[in-house]
Amino acid sequence: MTTVTVWNEYRHEREDDEAREVYPDGIHETIAGFLADEGFDTRTATLDEPEHGLTESVLDDTDVLTWWGHEAHDEVEDEVVERVHERVLSGMGLLVLHSGHFSKIFKRLMGTTCDLKWRDEGEKERLWLVEPGHPIAEGVEESIEVPEAEMYGERFDVPAPDTLVFNSWFEGGEVFRSGCCYRRGAGRVFYFRPGHETYPIYHQPEIQKVLANAVSWASPVGGTVPSTGHVPEPPERD
Amino acid sequence: MTTVTVWNEYRHEREDDEAREVYPDGIHETIAGFLADEGFDTRTATLDEPEHGLTESVLDDTDVLTWWGHEAHDEVEDEVVERVHERVLSGMGLLVLHSGHFSKIFKRLMGTTCDLKWRDEGEKERLWLVEPGHPIAEGVEESIEVPEAEMYGERFDVPAPDTLVFNSWFEGGEVFRSGCCYRRGAGRVFYFRPGHETYPIYHQPEIQKVLANAVSWASPVGGTVPSTGHVPEPPERD
Amino acid sequence: MTTVTVWNEYRHEREDDEAREVYPDGIHETIAGFLADEGFDTRTATLDEPEHGLTESVLDDTDVLTWWGHEAHDEVEDEVVERVHERVLSGMGLLVLHSGHFSKIFKRLMGTTCDLKWRDEGEKERLWLVEPGHPIAEGVEESIEVPEAEMYGERFDVPAPDTLVFNSWFEGGEVFRSGCCYRRGAGRVFYFRPGHETYPIYHQPEIQKVLANAVSWASPVGGTVPSTGHVPEPPERD
Amino acid sequence: MTTVTVWNEYRHEREDDEAREVYPDGIHETIAGFLADEGFDTRTATLDEPEHGLTESVLDDTDVLTWWGHEAHDEVEDEVVERVHERVLSGMGLLVLHSGHFSKIFKRLMGTTCDLKWRDEGEKERLWLVEPGHPIAEGVEESIEVPEAEMYGERFDVPAPDTLVFNSWFEGGEVFRSGCCYRRGAGRVFYFRPGHETYPIYHQPEIQKVLANAVSWASPVGGTVPSTGHVPEPPERD
Repeated sequence: MTTVTVWNEYRHEREDDEAREVYPDGIHETIAGFLADEGFDTRTATLDEPEHGLTESVLDDTDVLTWWGHEAHDEVEDEVVERVHERVLSGMGLLVLHSGHFSKIFKRLMGTTCDLKWRDEGEKERLWLVEPGHPIAEGVEESIEVPEAEMYGERFDVPAPDTLVFNSWFEGGEVFRSGCCYRRGAGRVFYFRPGHETYPIYHQPEIQKVLANAVSWASPVGGTVPSTGHVPEPPERD
Repeated sequence: MTTVTVWNEYRHEREDDEAREVYPDGIHETIAGFLADEGFDTRTATLDEPEHGLTESVLDDTDVLTWWGHEAHDEVEDEVVERVHERVLSGMGLLVLHSGHFSKIFKRLMGTTCDLKWRDEGEKERLWLVEPGHPIAEGVEESIEVPEAEMYGERFDVPAPDTLVFNSWFEGGEVFRSGCCYRRGAGRVFYFRPGHETYPIYHQPEIQKVLANAVSWASPVGGTVPSTGHVPEPPERD
Repeated sequence: MTTVTVWNEYRHEREDDEAREVYPDGIHETIAGFLADEGFDTRTATLDEPEHGLTESVLDDTDVLTWWGHEAHDEVEDEVVERVHERVLSGMGLLVLHSGHFSKIFKRLMGTTCDLKWRDEGEKERLWLVEPGHPIAEGVEESIEVPEAEMYGERFDVPAPDTLVFNSWFEGGEVFRSGCCYRRGAGRVFYFRPGHETYPIYHQPEIQKVLANAVSWASPVGGTVPSTGHVPEPPERD
Repeated sequence: MTTVTVWNEYRHEREDDEAREVYPDGIHETIAGFLADEGFDTRTATLDEPEHGLTESVLDDTDVLTWWGHEAHDEVEDEVVERVHERVLSGMGLLVLHSGHFSKIFKRLMGTTCDLKWRDEGEKERLWLVEPGHPIAEGVEESIEVPEAEMYGERFDVPAPDTLVFNSWFEGGEVFRSGCCYRRGAGRVFYFRPGHETYPIYHQPEIQKVLANAVSWASPVGGTVPSTGHVPEPPERD
């Protein structure tokens, strides 16, 4: 059974009425809830817990980690970022959500600024599926409409994704590569753009379906992690 | 000096008043004209010439071929398609323009249907640059607005491009990967979406700039074409 | 349950003593056998059956097709190639094995010559895993040794794979991208180099493991195949 | 005229007799010398200069930076690494050479460990060209033999290269993706494996040719760096 740790900054929902109304128990509880309904073994972790809730023992028992953060990226301790980074390279899946594009862990894995254009005016977004047949697209229609969203626009400063699954249109005139797959080390990373503290996007069934699919896709495969370092004997002298 | 052969179906401009008004001497003359102004050695070739104007001797003297076709893709002889295909794999550059997505040569090179959604209502298109620093983006702003265009929408059934340079937004709600780079054999292929027989898109300086850049990018490099076939002696027995 | 149709040219094993000794019932029976042991629902089809055993009704019931051919590629009818091609673009998985690199269907999908260097002297091959964590690498060691193989050497004239999983070393001095993943349409294609009619490569458990993994990876996902063609109404007029 | 800054750790050549014999004035002088002969405007910079010779003003005047380091990666100050990182994302080319795979700047850009297998026994390496027609392959034969080299073997823990240009074979049984192209931000990065302080690899004309080509390829294009941040007015309200 795939174990998922749903991480959330969990500040907006405690500080802002608007966010609390949409996600009364925090974005993490909403996400953990629908993933549990899909049959995953879920737990949550938040910024203000000791070690941000991401202790070695929690990560030992995590197949896939999801990450939502926004206003407090800088408060995430570098030590925890390095810990998560090592886990991803060793095979743990990572789903980076919406404003998580600016998280330390995503920037660490991408090696770029991960910057973009933005405008928060409740514009319509439509995600178009560009890679049908991809596991993350299982059971998903050819487009998903998000009635009100914060706009993120290109140019998104990330390495070209290994696979681009969704491409977003925004009412105001912008586009965005909104579903991006990466392999890093033995791990898989999926960046998924939709989601915001004041819009009920994580309550949309289509968005939930994509995230559940992405958890399955990012789950570790039981493969060898190749050795590195000095190899004194050439295999051909065997 | 880079030699460019600008190929055009050249039917709309002789048959339709609307097209003739925008491109009185044919789309090919417009394209050849601005490419010559950029310093390329250009010639034209059209469907109704013998061998569609693409004889072996013409191709011998072609570094980059540009392709515009629409209503008469089926009239292009398979023998000429194979001839062009071989040239591309041997290093000749190919720029496939707009409705050329459905040309025999593009489908031959892609191995897919190259199908897409479309609607011809004069909608606004905005091309966003997603790969700054790419040679095709030299001197190009971060977005290009096309006031009136035929819409092409995802899902565009092509292999994922080796490099995606432009990503288009359309007024009516669609997006499209509108500037796609491919390597095939020793040759380079660039698909560029804008352009239509009844809109003055090839008269726009920004579009002309992209096409001139693309010609430079697709020009053959003077490299070795690796040998294939039987190698009786292993290099290690030398 | 995933259904697999194992296709084989089945000529060498009937004509050559050496091949018959290694694969007495044909390569297809060996492959179908170990895939059945892995829990797949397998059947076989061969060149000399009517429609090469690949009727519409067989393909209706095929999730993944595996393809082994060598000396009779030209005898495969174009109509059947087109039929298989359409199925792949619609989501059927395709595993192209060893000398299948020169099959009509693989060349049709790749759009290139698929040519390479070769030498059949029973050299040692070692496949190195370059993408740990990939589903095709599940349970596979960091390298696989094939004691005697026909050498295939670069440059392999294919589009750069979407994902390169294995990279081969050969005793005589060559290298080869030997495990190549492609998405085409809604379907997935895996080219896997090892395998030859006179070496017992398909009897090696590590090779069998890779092929079983590849079947799982290439199985169709129950997703939408996006629509194409004319879209009279922009979604934004909804 | 393209300006190149050739950076070198410059310790081995001052400390080890063997290295001094091969590169009496340092690896940097050898590289800067042949690049100057190819028509580039070159300068050098080394670890023990103030700010490692990589001041803002030096970088202001650098189109492409080449990086060779080995035993003192940790002595490179983080501030200089960040400075170089920003420059690359803004368009400066970067060539990372041999043991530079473990440099701070390469790891920063890749987001992975960049670890590999190694063995220093003077084995033969043969680099096979896998992307003919690539600018870095201009004028290069289909393979390059390095008579004596330190072996680097897969799995090389880097993101899959945007383009793989060379693939290496080693006498002892390993392979390695030895010429890897990446786009990061508006900049281009080329990792090139050959080169070592005690083998005369940088004196080989074929290796020099590849490096000269790579400088040309990585030179900045005079394009727009897209804006990021808040966009209060949607373009469609224009």
